[in-house]
Amino acid sequence: MDGITKWNAREGVWQMHAKKLKCWKCNWEGALAMKYECPVCGNSLEVVYDYEEVNKENLEKALSGCSGLWSFTELLPVRNPEHIISLNEGATPLYRSSEEFECQVYWKDETRNPTLSFKDRPNSVGISVAKEFGFQNVSIASTGNGGASLSAYAAKGKMQCHICIPESTPQGKVVQAEYHGAELVLCKGDYSDSYQYNKQQSEKNKWANMTSTYLNPYTMEGDKTIAYELFIQLGRKVPEWVVVPLGAGAMLTGIYKGFVELKRLGFCSELPKMIGVQAEGCAPIVDAWLNKQDEVQHWDKCRTIAGAIADPLKGYEKDGTRTLHCIYESKGAAVKVSDKEIMYWVKQLAERDGLFVEPASASAVAAIAQLLKERVIKEDETAIGIITAHGLKDSEELEKYIEHAREDG
Amino acid sequence: MDGITKWNAREGVWQMHAKKLKCWKCNWEGALAMKYECPVCGNSLEVVYDYEEVNKENLEKALSGCSGLWSFTELLPVRNPEHIISLNEGATPLYRSSEEFECQVYWKDETRNPTLSFKDRPNSVGISVAKEFGFQNVSIASTGNGGASLSAYAAKGKMQCHICIPESTPQGKVVQAEYHGAELVLCKGDYSDSYQYNKQQSEKNKWANMTSTYLNPYTMEGDKTIAYELFIQLGRKVPEWVVVPLGAGAMLTGIYKGFVELKRLGFCSELPKMIGVQAEGCAPIVDAWLNKQDEVQHWDKCRTIAGAIADPLKGYEKDGTRTLHCIYESKGAAVKVSDKEIMYWVKQLAERDGLFVEPASASAVAAIAQLLKERVIKEDETAIGIITAHGLKDSEELEKYIEHAREDG
Ligand SMILES: [Zn+2]
Ligand SMILES: [Zn+2]
Repeated sequence: MDGITKWNAREGVWQMHAKKLKCWKCNWEGALAMKYECPVCGNSLEVVYDYEEVNKENLEKALSGCSGLWSFTELLPVRNPEHIISLNEGATPLYRSSEEFECQVYWKDETRNPTLSFKDRPNSVGISVAKEFGFQNVSIASTGNGGASLSAYAAKGKMQCHICIPESTPQGKVVQAEYHGAELVLCKGDYSDSYQYNKQQSEKNKWANMTSTYLNPYTMEGDKTIAYELFIQLGRKVPEWVVVPLGAGAMLTGIYKGFVELKRLGFCSELPKMIGVQAEGCAPIVDAWLNKQDEVQHWDKCRTIAGAIADPLKGYEKDGTRTLHCIYESKGAAVKVSDKEIMYWVKQLAERDGLFVEPASASAVAAIAQLLKERVIKEDETAIGIITAHGLKDSEELEKYIEHAREDG
Repeated sequence: MDGITKWNAREGVWQMHAKKLKCWKCNWEGALAMKYECPVCGNSLEVVYDYEEVNKENLEKALSGCSGLWSFTELLPVRNPEHIISLNEGATPLYRSSEEFECQVYWKDETRNPTLSFKDRPNSVGISVAKEFGFQNVSIASTGNGGASLSAYAAKGKMQCHICIPESTPQGKVVQAEYHGAELVLCKGDYSDSYQYNKQQSEKNKWANMTSTYLNPYTMEGDKTIAYELFIQLGRKVPEWVVVPLGAGAMLTGIYKGFVELKRLGFCSELPKMIGVQAEGCAPIVDAWLNKQDEVQHWDKCRTIAGAIADPLKGYEKDGTRTLHCIYESKGAAVKVSDKEIMYWVKQLAERDGLFVEPASASAVAAIAQLLKERVIKEDETAIGIITAHGLKDSEELEKYIEHAREDG
């Protein structure tokens, strides 16, 4: 008996409704497998469910209270509850902002996940699927949070974890992964270099690759549970806007997928407009949106304090394009914000809401402020900012910044 | 409408049952006030409730599922829900240990609180009481976690926070408090020096002192909610042993008080035996217990990697004595563990359970291992280890340690 695994209550009535993989671009379909790209066009994949089969009574129950990611098994791609590797992710709080904005603003506080970032959602689902497919080794290319997270889940699941991170990764994230017993490779260059090296190594060694750009098609199924929780926490309403800090943007597309599923199953009739946020110093997706392009180009030199979203997309520009199209489809927007704005909102969140967050998280807040000024978000609307990771994840950077502020002031 | 404040559901039926303060030692009683010691004998105080008045139906409801600290308002000392300052503390997971011990071992994972340590419980209650009494300023002497926590709550509650911490406090804990806008004083010397300086300043300036040795009588009311949650999570059972890392030990006494209340109200018939753990390099309470003394002496030079529990009790030895007596009363035990054992279990928790904790937390695990070897804890018994704070709270120390381990091979 384990007091916390509430989803255990459903053991015995388990039935998986995930049926196949589908290419997001050309609609190729194939069997569920640890597969990373469409064999026809090379684009990324997504999991398709048999929505007719979903037990709506079970789902209704899951949607009646937040009790964690694995309460949503009706819409998750795992067949056997024994394969679930969980550290009690999800069921994160939703706070009304203390700052007085002109519209209804809420923070979805993903810092409250077990390894202090939203990455625990995609990793818990991804590694459980890997376990179900019989893998003993998992890998990830990460700016730090993803690696720290996956290493904890691999430890819990008694699997071996291999991580590639840029050598500039904050020490806190490295230490976490090391303690969890992960094999760490510090790669020269930026995140894209780590991405490529990890992809190579994973193919060669047949590791299940959890890289959460869009490479692994199962991880997004973890991200989408944020949508289910927002729906519950807003009193079964769909917000007008969901504002998401973007690396490649799988979280944004995942959250949108969650709402699309709720609509398809008849739980709601609206969909939110998705807003993607990047730092000015690394904004390939935002620039494509601003220029009304159909495809995203990679970025050359990342320069931003928001390391967790500094993804130049070199070599997998198509993943940025997928995010761009999700923003178009949802009639959303894309915004870039300066490091100065980001750090202003880091401080505001700490001083007004008692939330201590890493810079990437505050980019969502900066974006809401900007879009209210530009009257994109209207007075009577509801906007959700996704707070992606805790400030202690990057305390060195935050420390440097506050020391400068002290000297200046 | 705020999706997360589940206790809001009880607005309107609010009734406070806390009736007076009582001296733990001489039984002096007086009115509820921001009072720090017995006017007769100078010892610390506790909150007394009118247990006859408690609405058992409300409490029964709160004990039917973990929905956070403020679901236990029947047994908390706040009159007006508007005075509650909450960041969604409590409702932390209870995990079965992955390590195979000879008895049933669970970790109560207090790292999942909003500022990543158990201190959010005492601070949320303490600062809410301060608000109710009309204070605008709160203060705390802290080894770091308490200060980081209180500063977040003060930010949320729009109050001013004053913190005294030893100058050796890990940078991560300092940065957190700074971002939350607290006034920080780095004190020369050890925790006891910070304690004295903060006491002086608080008296002079009439700040509500939240120092959680035992100074503030309300903060322990937060600690005790751990007992309620354990009772719920163990399927309404009382564990044989609860193992608590000790500074002055208010958490140990608080948890015991929680169980005593449950027994008094007829929810259970047993009480747990309380085990206090200290590091060999700072073990004033454990030494008093080992020598069967009636009073605790202060410690001279603290030397341990577990900074969060390095409290020499200089000048408030009587607080250690209160903890000692709680251990005696519960027929428990006290144990000291070496830094080497502590770091061994930090690594084990990370590698086997996916939990990344600060050294003080692992002292509870080391103690369980030791007491099993000594056959104090028996095979068929249940032992709960309180995991007090997250590893990123002290990542510098953990980093140094793993670097040494790397060099040694
Ligand atoms: Zn295709
Ligand atoms: Zn007295």
